[in-house]
Amino acid sequence: MATPRLTLREITERLGGEVVGEADAPLSGIASLDDAGPGQLTFLASPKFRSRLAGTRAAAVIVGPKDRDATTLPRIVAANPYAYYARAVALFHPAKPVVAGIHPSAVVDSSARVAPSACVGPFAVIEAGAAVGERATIGAGCYVGEGAVIGDDTFLHPRVTVYHACVVGARGILHSGAVIGADGFGMAPENGAWVKIPQVGRAVLGDDVEVGANTTIDRGALGDTVVEEGVKLDNQIQIAHNCRVGAHTVIAGCAGIAGSTTIGRHCLIGGGVGIIGHLTICDGVTVSGMTLVTKSITAPGTYTSGGPFMPHAEWLRNAAHLRHLDRIAHDARAASRQGKADGTDDD
Amino acid sequence: MATPRLTLREITERLGGEVVGEADAPLSGIASLDDAGPGQLTFLASPKFRSRLAGTRAAAVIVGPKDRDATTLPRIVAANPYAYYARAVALFHPAKPVVAGIHPSAVVDSSARVAPSACVGPFAVIEAGAAVGERATIGAGCYVGEGAVIGDDTFLHPRVTVYHACVVGARGILHSGAVIGADGFGMAPENGAWVKIPQVGRAVLGDDVEVGANTTIDRGALGDTVVEEGVKLDNQIQIAHNCRVGAHTVIAGCAGIAGSTTIGRHCLIGGGVGIIGHLTICDGVTVSGMTLVTKSITAPGTYTSGGPFMPHAEWLRNAAHLRHLDRIAHDARAASRQGKADGTDDD
Amino acid sequence: MATPRLTLREITERLGGEVVGEADAPLSGIASLDDAGPGQLTFLASPKFRSRLAGTRAAAVIVGPKDRDATTLPRIVAANPYAYYARAVALFHPAKPVVAGIHPSAVVDSSARVAPSACVGPFAVIEAGAAVGERATIGAGCYVGEGAVIGDDTFLHPRVTVYHACVVGARGILHSGAVIGADGFGMAPENGAWVKIPQVGRAVLGDDVEVGANTTIDRGALGDTVVEEGVKLDNQIQIAHNCRVGAHTVIAGCAGIAGSTTIGRHCLIGGGVGIIGHLTICDGVTVSGMTLVTKSITAPGTYTSGGPFMPHAEWLRNAAHLRHLDRIAHDARAASRQGKADGTDDD
Repeated sequence: MATPRLTLREITERLGGEVVGEADAPLSGIASLDDAGPGQLTFLASPKFRSRLAGTRAAAVIVGPKDRDATTLPRIVAANPYAYYARAVALFHPAKPVVAGIHPSAVVDSSARVAPSACVGPFAVIEAGAAVGERATIGAGCYVGEGAVIGDDTFLHPRVTVYHACVVGARGILHSGAVIGADGFGMAPENGAWVKIPQVGRAVLGDDVEVGANTTIDRGALGDTVVEEGVKLDNQIQIAHNCRVGAHTVIAGCAGIAGSTTIGRHCLIGGGVGIIGHLTICDGVTVSGMTLVTKSITAPGTYTSGGPFMPHAEWLRNAAHLRHLDRIAHDARAASRQGKADGTDDD
Repeated sequence: MATPRLTLREITERLGGEVVGEADAPLSGIASLDDAGPGQLTFLASPKFRSRLAGTRAAAVIVGPKDRDATTLPRIVAANPYAYYARAVALFHPAKPVVAGIHPSAVVDSSARVAPSACVGPFAVIEAGAAVGERATIGAGCYVGEGAVIGDDTFLHPRVTVYHACVVGARGILHSGAVIGADGFGMAPENGAWVKIPQVGRAVLGDDVEVGANTTIDRGALGDTVVEEGVKLDNQIQIAHNCRVGAHTVIAGCAGIAGSTTIGRHCLIGGGVGIIGHLTICDGVTVSGMTLVTKSITAPGTYTSGGPFMPHAEWLRNAAHLRHLDRIAHDARAASRQGKADGTDDD
Repeated sequence: MATPRLTLREITERLGGEVVGEADAPLSGIASLDDAGPGQLTFLASPKFRSRLAGTRAAAVIVGPKDRDATTLPRIVAANPYAYYARAVALFHPAKPVVAGIHPSAVVDSSARVAPSACVGPFAVIEAGAAVGERATIGAGCYVGEGAVIGDDTFLHPRVTVYHACVVGARGILHSGAVIGADGFGMAPENGAWVKIPQVGRAVLGDDVEVGANTTIDRGALGDTVVEEGVKLDNQIQIAHNCRVGAHTVIAGCAGIAGSTTIGRHCLIGGGVGIIGHLTICDGVTVSGMTLVTKSITAPGTYTSGGPFMPHAEWLRNAAHLRHLDRIAHDARAASRQGKADGTDDD
């Protein structure tokens, strides 16, 4: 689809903000400060990039109130220039309207309720008693299990699976390969083997949840796994059974959350993070990439584990000592005490 | 499907165990100690939760022999209350019977052998020479490659891929997005580029194996990748070519096992664990979450790597020293020796 | 398909190299030094395995020039025996020819251009304006989005998704469950919630790229995500938006590369590695398994983080000290200075 041309006036008429300078020159698109070419709009997401503003070839720029006078380019002054940029991209790249209808190849059970305005793609399967909301899209090859619910305006990209009885709220986006509601990993040991514990809870996703490609959210064992409204999940994430992820929390790719853990609201969980089971993470916690969280966190802030990477030869010299850190700590403490006893500590 | 109502008498008639107290009151379902409501059955998986027994609202409870008198509630005394609970859940939530038949949309090669009692869902593809066992289920959109074998009573949830020539045993459960038998990652360097090594072995799964959503088990390079009977794999796991995973071993989500590694029987591999290639892990090993195993393990026990997580500011102060641990260790040792020479060590 | 029988003469006629000894005995296949049986060909990938040559039961062996006289078996002397082995496997296990044609169940938009020599499997979907090259294979249940391009001789195994506008070069291999071009993970915070940033770039894969099962490569936010020619990606990898992976780089399973990071050419990225966003890794870098890379790397070499694994009891004694490494380092340094002042350092 061709990108529409828009002027600063047209943009502010739709998104708010104030135009400073030429308002009626047509712009052909949007790009970063470094990549924008003549005729394009760019944005200054943060004052810390202000020095790069001078070099941009863009025709116009979105700035925050503090950067109102940081450029002579035609500009939009907006309270939150980064969020404004997000919406401006959507103006230049409007989503295709949902084309209502069920592809003739789709297999939709007669007891499923598919809204007339919904779009069901080729080779999709919608089982008995499932419900698909208004203007929802069920992409090619998706599977919506028995009694599952897909909310209004939710978009399932191709090849998403939603198991029976699970719920996806409104305005969700589920990327290809996501699996919602597979069995949680529960089994009881008996005589050296394992007895499967049937997983009879659900996975329930609130409104405005985005789920990345190949991310998995298991159903609960007895109760539900819950992902609250506004949560954004990147690709390749695993959310185990009976977890709860609080509203507006963001989890980056490849993270894994073990069973029955509760994550608070407005958390930022880094890529590759692991959180063990049965913990509670309070609201407002940031966890650095690849940190392993082994205890509950009760205070907002940033938490980290792991060590710095280094050239391998250097690592070989250093890391072996981790096997003997207890002795090293003891030696250092003993020596320190002796130094203090002697009055020779260098503090 | 409505949950059936069951009495303690009916449950013990099917699962064994002894009823103490009222045996004929109908129970409406099963829930945890904390969540169970009136009319529900609960369970005391371990004596360590005994203190929570007093507060439960459940109508009856499954206990072990040592907890026979820990409650006055009607109860079932069972040797292994957690395994008993697992089976009781299945009574309250019986699996739907397999509906024999091939969906008219499925593409089944004329040379494939599909048992008359098997169920093949819409848009499934079963290639030439493949075999599907009695009462097996091939879910919607699954792909069973040429000459692959799916055992009796095995259940493939929607969108599972089993590549050509691979074997899945009886009573297996493969969750959505699982990929069995993709090419192992093998290539030979030549002149700065890579020559692909065709992967001509198979992936062979024993009986009673469960494979989580989006887990991948690669086929062998020349020989086979083998997952023995009773192994349980969580979601998002990667098992590389020519690995062998011993019987009844359990692997938690997001773990990755590199090529040609052998894991013993009855191991517990934690979430996010990495095991490098060409190692041997003996029977009965537990590996803590996110540990990297870089050497073979020859003694049962629990193994761990990594460090504690901490507030980021604290981490910044501490972690930088890991680059200099060799010098720190040397300094501490030297000081300790001096202290000992002086007779001032505080041991 | 039955494995053809080949003689050393036939093999060298097709792959080059020199035969020493019996050239015309038919060989039934190829196997490793330890596994090869009578009548099979084996290979000595490296002189370090020379001691195992004496025990092989193979009928013939591929060796390098330095090992020309390391055996009396009939042999092929090749400059690069491991790469030779890779090609020899392909001779014994020839790829099935692509059967041109579009399965009647596939849904191919009338504006898509599918080469007459391409193969499109059952339940594949090819959207408007997409292009599929000569002799390409689009496996069962694959999805090729609007305007996407699949190069000549590229093979998509079943259930691959290529989102709209993305490009896959020639001779690529994409394994089942791979997702190319899902939205990058971009959103702007606003009033405690998140505004989605439309991801309007593409994912562009060069020629000769292999993508493992369930690996995900996101599309760019404004510009493109680029995977250059000859890159080999294992399973379960996540490549975030606007990354660039340099030619002939290899990435092992479960690695995650955060947004806007550039990886050089001829790098070897280990399994489970994490690389944070907006970094530059130069050519020729090796990163050890499960290392977290937090800064750009400007010199070739091997880089590592993490610590050794150990028995858990030992780990408990040692790891707790990581919370106090700053004090330990200080104590050790102070004691060392005192020792030096006293002239008692043991260096």
